[in-house]
Amino acid sequence: MTVSPPFTNSPAPLPLTIRDIEAAANRITPFLQPTPLFTSRTFDQIVHNQCFFKGEHYQRGGSFKVRGAMNRILQLGTGERERGVVAFSSGNHSQGVAIAAKTLGIPATIVMPNDAPQAKRQATLGYGAEIVDYDRQQQDREAIAQELARERGLTLIPPYDDWQIIAGQGTVALELFQQVADLDVLMVPLGGGGLLSGCSMVARTVNPTITIYGVEPETGDDFYQSLQKGERVRIPVPDTIADGIRTTYPGVCTFAVIRQMVDGVLLVSDAEILQAMRFLLYRMKMVVEPTGAVAVAALLSHKLAIQGKRVGLVLSGGNVDAEILAQAL
Amino acid sequence: MTVSPPFTNSPAPLPLTIRDIEAAANRITPFLQPTPLFTSRTFDQIVHNQCFFKGEHYQRGGSFKVRGAMNRILQLGTGERERGVVAFSSGNHSQGVAIAAKTLGIPATIVMPNDAPQAKRQATLGYGAEIVDYDRQQQDREAIAQELARERGLTLIPPYDDWQIIAGQGTVALELFQQVADLDVLMVPLGGGGLLSGCSMVARTVNPTITIYGVEPETGDDFYQSLQKGERVRIPVPDTIADGIRTTYPGVCTFAVIRQMVDGVLLVSDAEILQAMRFLLYRMKMVVEPTGAVAVAALLSHKLAIQGKRVGLVLSGGNVDAEILAQAL
Repeated sequence: MTVSPPFTNSPAPLPLTIRDIEAAANRITPFLQPTPLFTSRTFDQIVHNQCFFKGEHYQRGGSFKVRGAMNRILQLGTGERERGVVAFSSGNHSQGVAIAAKTLGIPATIVMPNDAPQAKRQATLGYGAEIVDYDRQQQDREAIAQELARERGLTLIPPYDDWQIIAGQGTVALELFQQVADLDVLMVPLGGGGLLSGCSMVARTVNPTITIYGVEPETGDDFYQSLQKGERVRIPVPDTIADGIRTTYPGVCTFAVIRQMVDGVLLVSDAEILQAMRFLLYRMKMVVEPTGAVAVAALLSHKLAIQGKRVGLVLSGGNVDAEILAQAL
Repeated sequence: MTVSPPFTNSPAPLPLTIRDIEAAANRITPFLQPTPLFTSRTFDQIVHNQCFFKGEHYQRGGSFKVRGAMNRILQLGTGERERGVVAFSSGNHSQGVAIAAKTLGIPATIVMPNDAPQAKRQATLGYGAEIVDYDRQQQDREAIAQELARERGLTLIPPYDDWQIIAGQGTVALELFQQVADLDVLMVPLGGGGLLSGCSMVARTVNPTITIYGVEPETGDDFYQSLQKGERVRIPVPDTIADGIRTTYPGVCTFAVIRQMVDGVLLVSDAEILQAMRFLLYRMKMVVEPTGAVAVAALLSHKLAIQGKRVGLVLSGGNVDAEILAQAL
């Protein structure tokens, strides 16, 4: 079974509305360009639906992450801006923070494992950020980042469990709904849940009857399990090719939004993700990272029994290592 | 030396103006979507110019070719439409003809070598075309196509040396100039010259002082030689990775336009093309075929001593075989 059973809707009012996401869009629009929307008749014929692909791999830094980071940083006070920001991750969130900070002339420190790929280190340095190394086996990156924040007076920019981060990521869906109307279904990659939270808030408000799915890797089914249980479940660090969504438990904010707004969670295997990446490469001429391809994987491997629907899919990013790309070929 | 020396401008009036290209745009717009424009700060920093990439690999069929084919086919009479069209090529032009014909409900026959890749055959059949095989060693594909045209009353759709094909391809530049203003330089892949002819006619009319370059593979320098000599020069079938522009001599129409409109021809090696494809894959997240990457290759390998200019580059297509893509990785 791939769709989680219906879960109890929590009636608790959320401290986030589409107005916050519209405000985020107004804030970040001067610094970012809208990403293009793609269609593929071949894909539509294969999956028997009419699909619209939102190309966040063409966002600055190669993923949607700069949206949330920029929305958060733009709301810092003058003193906070002068002291700078810190983030921990070797992935897309740190790139997003580094780019947002550089764009706004704010110092950024990124806590990164000392065995991170050279390409990622170079890219981060290229965006003007300072890198602080840690030992993945011995040290806790979050503790290091918090220590840095305290010592140097830096503001920690969290990857997803923050209302302003969520509002920034939601601008993906605002743009999508400006580009295409009347979607029946929306499918979004699901890791920490920032992207899905923001997008589902927009989608549900614009179209109350839309069906919204998050897509997780089979081995990283923390949201799937949590929605079934009705509470946040922690899982071991998942072993999946989708390195952008190797989260081990839902965020507090993101779980609150997703349990109210989302209709279900679909699970895909690494093989299905690679098949989706291959289709995107050869037929749609685009490089999408494993995490970015999970929604495409879910449709291509028929996780949903839908036909003739208008389906929006978010391609969340394109930052992929050579070995994974070679595997997809 | 990579830029051809100045050549004598022919004063002969051309039977093609920007009005024909605007008419082509009006004709084909209902059937095709505009392709997106991309930028890359990283690329701009490397080449010290501000660059705008026109993404024709996102055109229907994966290249610009459907534009010219559709413009040509839309001007056929009722009887011609009923009998159908024929094209010879195992490449993008045939895909373009097949897609245009299918879209307009017209039968298409494609003359294709019997050793053409299975993927291309399947794609062509998928667009509803009939395939007529020929033996690459023994038979002349053009003669076969002309024979079919005579026998069955089909209209032969030529790949580039035709004013209506050229007008259709020129719509790429019309779109480009709607998306970005004030280009100083335009760089376009150059094979038979249909794309460059149409684009240079638009660019020169919109901005008389723009500098326009065609880009050819080093081994396929038929236009380069022809412009130097002032007449169409025939070369042996070039050995280059850029399979879309393995032409052996300029067309009559395309040579007439290009000698009047274009400032020079740049030459790039296969290694430079592969380097450009790699950059496009990893940094810009897009799959561009060798032919489509030649303009990027020319800038990346510093064939032009320009700085601080606004440069438009046409990425002409994205249909690439697995082996070549693996080579680029």
